[in-house]
Amino acid sequence: MKRESLPVLHPIAGFRLGTTSAGIRKPGRPDLVVMTLEAGTTCAAVFTRNEFCAAPVIVAREHLGKTAPSCLIVNTGNANAGTGADGLADARDCCVAAAGLAKVVPEAVLPFSTGVIGEPLAVDRLIAGLPDAFARLSEDGWAEAATGIMTTDTVPKGASRRIEVDGRTVTVTGIAKGSGMIRPDMATMLAFIATDAAIDTPGLQRCLSGAVERSFNRITVDGDTSTNDACILAASGKVSAPRISSDAHLALFGDAVTAVAIELAQAIVRDGEGATRFVTVTVEQGADRNECLQVAYTIAHSPLVKTALFAGDPNWGRILAAVGRAGIGGLAIERVQLYLDDVCIVRNGGRAADYREEEGERVLARSEFEIRVVLGRGERREQVWTCDLTYDYVRINAEYRT
Amino acid sequence: MKRESLPVLHPIAGFRLGTTSAGIRKPGRPDLVVMTLEAGTTCAAVFTRNEFCAAPVIVAREHLGKTAPSCLIVNTGNANAGTGADGLADARDCCVAAAGLAKVVPEAVLPFSTGVIGEPLAVDRLIAGLPDAFARLSEDGWAEAATGIMTTDTVPKGASRRIEVDGRTVTVTGIAKGSGMIRPDMATMLAFIATDAAIDTPGLQRCLSGAVERSFNRITVDGDTSTNDACILAASGKVSAPRISSDAHLALFGDAVTAVAIELAQAIVRDGEGATRFVTVTVEQGADRNECLQVAYTIAHSPLVKTALFAGDPNWGRILAAVGRAGIGGLAIERVQLYLDDVCIVRNGGRAADYREEEGERVLARSEFEIRVVLGRGERREQVWTCDLTYDYVRINAEYRT
Repeated sequence: MKRESLPVLHPIAGFRLGTTSAGIRKPGRPDLVVMTLEAGTTCAAVFTRNEFCAAPVIVAREHLGKTAPSCLIVNTGNANAGTGADGLADARDCCVAAAGLAKVVPEAVLPFSTGVIGEPLAVDRLIAGLPDAFARLSEDGWAEAATGIMTTDTVPKGASRRIEVDGRTVTVTGIAKGSGMIRPDMATMLAFIATDAAIDTPGLQRCLSGAVERSFNRITVDGDTSTNDACILAASGKVSAPRISSDAHLALFGDAVTAVAIELAQAIVRDGEGATRFVTVTVEQGADRNECLQVAYTIAHSPLVKTALFAGDPNWGRILAAVGRAGIGGLAIERVQLYLDDVCIVRNGGRAADYREEEGERVLARSEFEIRVVLGRGERREQVWTCDLTYDYVRINAEYRT
Repeated sequence: MKRESLPVLHPIAGFRLGTTSAGIRKPGRPDLVVMTLEAGTTCAAVFTRNEFCAAPVIVAREHLGKTAPSCLIVNTGNANAGTGADGLADARDCCVAAAGLAKVVPEAVLPFSTGVIGEPLAVDRLIAGLPDAFARLSEDGWAEAATGIMTTDTVPKGASRRIEVDGRTVTVTGIAKGSGMIRPDMATMLAFIATDAAIDTPGLQRCLSGAVERSFNRITVDGDTSTNDACILAASGKVSAPRISSDAHLALFGDAVTAVAIELAQAIVRDGEGATRFVTVTVEQGADRNECLQVAYTIAHSPLVKTALFAGDPNWGRILAAVGRAGIGGLAIERVQLYLDDVCIVRNGGRAADYREEEGERVLARSEFEIRVVLGRGERREQVWTCDLTYDYVRINAEYRT
């Protein structure tokens, strides 16, 4: 289900990454990543909508409004969230320290943090680790950085795509982290995507927003939206391909960014805390996007559905009950159909006459499958990705701080 | 946390209950309850808002619209939900059979079912069990009936109150079942409350709706609204007290019904599947009822909060993150306070300066405690009751049908 090894992550001209162990929470594990962006790089970003956004999110938003970023610093082990004024000061101190090493203004540094919420950031250890991270900067640093941003993730997550733009190769490479507290809302956990394409900021932001809507905003592990979600897309313009501005080029480039984002988003669900199943929830024939997503997320969040998936139990009554409580007014039960992969389980609001339980069990024995609900109300179709709820999810989250 | 033994359940003149083992799902366990209501009894009801309501809910609603009920039949082991036209026919057949034994019209019988969704009801076994249930009818049958309606419940649930109305004793007695798939919406799992008061149907419905709003609609175990939720309040008028119609009497009687309903609702949460903690979530100083409930339920549904509660880990960052994603626009973080019982953990949106983690752990070591969020936006206060998320919740729901 989850991929143990990273795919090839093509380096991107104009971006260098350095990873080190600063001992922020536990000694000896990589927990600090620096990424430098050459002058002229454009940058787009989306952040969590959680009202309690973390100190680094506040500072990153502020800095993005002032100047183009030259440097990202990412720490794991501590989210610097719920830390009040001290947390803000800590995030700013980190930016000042990194700015000194990068020889840029502090506003050109964007800070990102992930890990435990509500504890003070070990800002001294982080700053002490920066010189080593800078010393390790390399265009080939993607795989190490993917490991350096992990928290409860069990595998690093990266994706890379190459497209041809007027005969020149444009590359998009990204990394992400995330495993629990996953129900992004207009953003993901942390994801950093870079390209050597030349593209102005509005075009880049449009591509990123479109990609996020179809990737990170379509996954859920446990329905909990993080305080630190952020996704960055940066373009160095180092490739000799023409500037991406025509509709055709924007579409082509946007598709590549979306493909990278979907691969990263799915990797997060595949590595969902305790997950043993990767499940695509498809809702078809809805009246509009919202009702499709409402039904899909109600299924994807239901603890009863998720424990049945863990058990490999085709308990479709729980799925139907979730559809029924999704808040869709005037749902015509007799039109609803339910499929597990190719197996039709429910027709006309009741068990399909030809359904045999062994067939449902056969699908649920797979490590990846689709739950498909046909509403019979319209033309719209939406998909979200989720995982099951297992003993290990409880264990991981009950033991997290111990 | 949960009470192993039932409180005294006072019998109510005009109501008799009989419980038997019909072998509907498993042999030898009580699974069929009949309750008879003497002529002249008034009746109020609330039902699930799940669009996929079960066959018995559809039939019970229909019958209530036609005549006053004389008989309730309740089976456990099978919910007769998601069973289409066959399920409706099965529910009607049960009513016809019970009507024959009770010597009433079939429309005077209300059916209730709870258990597995989506499997055909063993209607022959149910009907074969009815004569024995009728033979066992007794005014003292409440405790046995409380056991006979259990599914994954580990303890029977009942409550009883006595009030004086103009010098006469009026009694309210109720039983309920429920443990998982608990997030009632305008109704509960199954609850049957009876009184010997004389009160007309509109007054009774008002008392029931008020009580449900403050009890069954304030609990959640796993956020899953059942297809079969129903709550009945019936009044035999057998006591010689005056008819309850004045505002003062309605308030007095409504309070007694509410007290019974709250005791039953809390008993459901105490017996929540796998629960080891009974948690009151209080949201204070909200602008209105809805935002208080939104915040309270976001906390009460969060798997991350619930696993931390199981671990006894005062991971208040998760609670704060839940408050932040509850969808309250313009939340002023710096006004938010968070308490675990009497311990102030968060003040001004960050860790309270005088907070020591041992104090948070001391509260969470209790089997019952309160999470209190102060929003600083208004005067409104709402409370919901919930439990933790444990290994046993996963085990119970992964093994449910095996």
